Amino acid sequence: MLKAEQTMTLVNGEVSSSIDVTDRGLQFGDGVFETIRINRGRLVWWQQHMNRLLEGCRCLHFTNLPNVDVLLKEAVQLSENCMEGALKIIITRGFSNCGYTIPREISPNRVLLIRPGVRNSAQARQGISIGVCQQRINSATNLSGIKHLNRLEQVLARMECATEGWDEGLMLNQRDKVIEGSMSNLFVWRHDHLFTPALDNAGVEGITRGIIIKLAEKCGIAVEQGELDVLDLPNVDELFVCNSLIGIWPVSQIETAKSGQLNFEIGDKTRFLQQQLEEAMCCAD
Amino acid sequence: MLKAEQTMTLVNGEVSSSIDVTDRGLQFGDGVFETIRINRGRLVWWQQHMNRLLEGCRCLHFTNLPNVDVLLKEAVQLSENCMEGALKIIITRGFSNCGYTIPREISPNRVLLIRPGVRNSAQARQGISIGVCQQRINSATNLSGIKHLNRLEQVLARMECATEGWDEGLMLNQRDKVIEGSMSNLFVWRHDHLFTPALDNAGVEGITRGIIIKLAEKCGIAVEQGELDVLDLPNVDELFVCNSLIGIWPVSQIETAKSGQLNFEIGDKTRFLQQQLEEAMCCAD
Repeated sequence: MLKAEQTMTLVNGEVSSSIDVTDRGLQFGDGVFETIRINRGRLVWWQQHMNRLLEGCRCLHFTNLPNVDVLLKEAVQLSENCMEGALKIIITRGFSNCGYTIPREISPNRVLLIRPGVRNSAQARQGISIGVCQQRINSATNLSGIKHLNRLEQVLARMECATEGWDEGLMLNQRDKVIEGSMSNLFVWRHDHLFTPALDNAGVEGITRGIIIKLAEKCGIAVEQGELDVLDLPNVDELFVCNSLIGIWPVSQIETAKSGQLNFEIGDKTRFLQQQLEEAMCCAD
Repeated sequence: MLKAEQTMTLVNGEVSSSIDVTDRGLQFGDGVFETIRINRGRLVWWQQHMNRLLEGCRCLHFTNLPNVDVLLKEAVQLSENCMEGALKIIITRGFSNCGYTIPREISPNRVLLIRPGVRNSAQARQGISIGVCQQRINSATNLSGIKHLNRLEQVLARMECATEGWDEGLMLNQRDKVIEGSMSNLFVWRHDHLFTPALDNAGVEGITRGIIIKLAEKCGIAVEQGELDVLDLPNVDELFVCNSLIGIWPVSQIETAKSGQLNFEIGDKTRFLQQQLEEAMCCAD
């Protein structure tokens, strides 16, 4: 059985923890990634992760797409002795040694890393504090939605969270609209309506975000997508962030420059979705 | 003596061509790079490259900066048998295995790759064709100027050049202002004035761009920096692109969607700067 903090890695199918430095993921961030939760030994929402991975590769105009059957085989091999943890899959465009130009003959590289460990669920129970990051998220219409390897904005936003002591930081676009968290998507409740920022121009279309939208709709809760101005944050009833590893973290506190510290109740509506998501995860493949 | 196409690599001082996959350069593009020309066995404009490299690391809030003395030692070691070629230096924030969050203890990784070979100077003599890329360059004020590893926009722009058969492609911001080429900076001559787009909000502050500005001013040519609308391209007298490896490439043809194909003379003013740059390079350290 793998121990927590113990990692195992496959690079292009070989047990290895290193990759050639001519890999375009290192050179230019030329690739995509997925972070998949392992729960009770199962790869949660595998198919949805693979769909987004392939969509990302298409969006970056990869000449060859990664083989999902091979990825599944390797993911299963790697997670064989892991009951709880995270699997990260990185797909890069391949190797090259001639600047930005893509060689005619190139095939993707795949890196699979497993990190065993049970998540601390204190935040899911007690709620988290969030702040609004100075670091903006830029509009890049043709790259929005996909989980590519150009993640400096998120790294810098995450650094602000560490400095400020926030569990998570919200990222705004250049027009002060909230797009997402540094490592999560955001949902807010307003007058019994569930709302999440539209991601047409920026942001990552989280798998858990998509699952929550479907679950909510199945329960008769309409989900609106649109723009959320940062100044409207104090006016929402409840809010929560989500991602594939943490599930749903309710927000109990927001720090804003203009309104100071705002406290939020973790209400029944958020708890209901948390429960729904947990149940769905247990039966998901 | 190293042969063309033969590469040599140092990773953290060791002769190696691979790096651990937990490197944050691969994971998030969390780092910076420099591409330095080797001319007659010398590392051209080394100090300027190091200044930008350190500035980039500071801008990304690296806990520890790379040691420039060590970099020089390794660069000299690697380029010992290389008379003409390119040296690429990649500096990443270091290794980590816990998402975007930066561990308290982290030190930068350094990758030095050498690629021997004499540049084909046909483009410098005969001029090049350029087009205007669909791929936009996004404004990211706090990251503008530095040569970080998040280069998907440039990769996608370069792909357009290959598809369209252009030698270089110009990249516009969201407001149709020309920022730079996919792998170069742009200069234009208008009524005896030299102009280059300001890079306050986007783009890379090329070392050669900086050298050209200084050389021009030394020769009594004022260099204006500001905004250049893509619609104004047909109205310039001469134009050229530059980077550390190619020097100056005069532009002899622009393909634009609105004005079709435009031909330009390669005039004396561009040839003069080309000559000045060549001479400066030969005495630069």
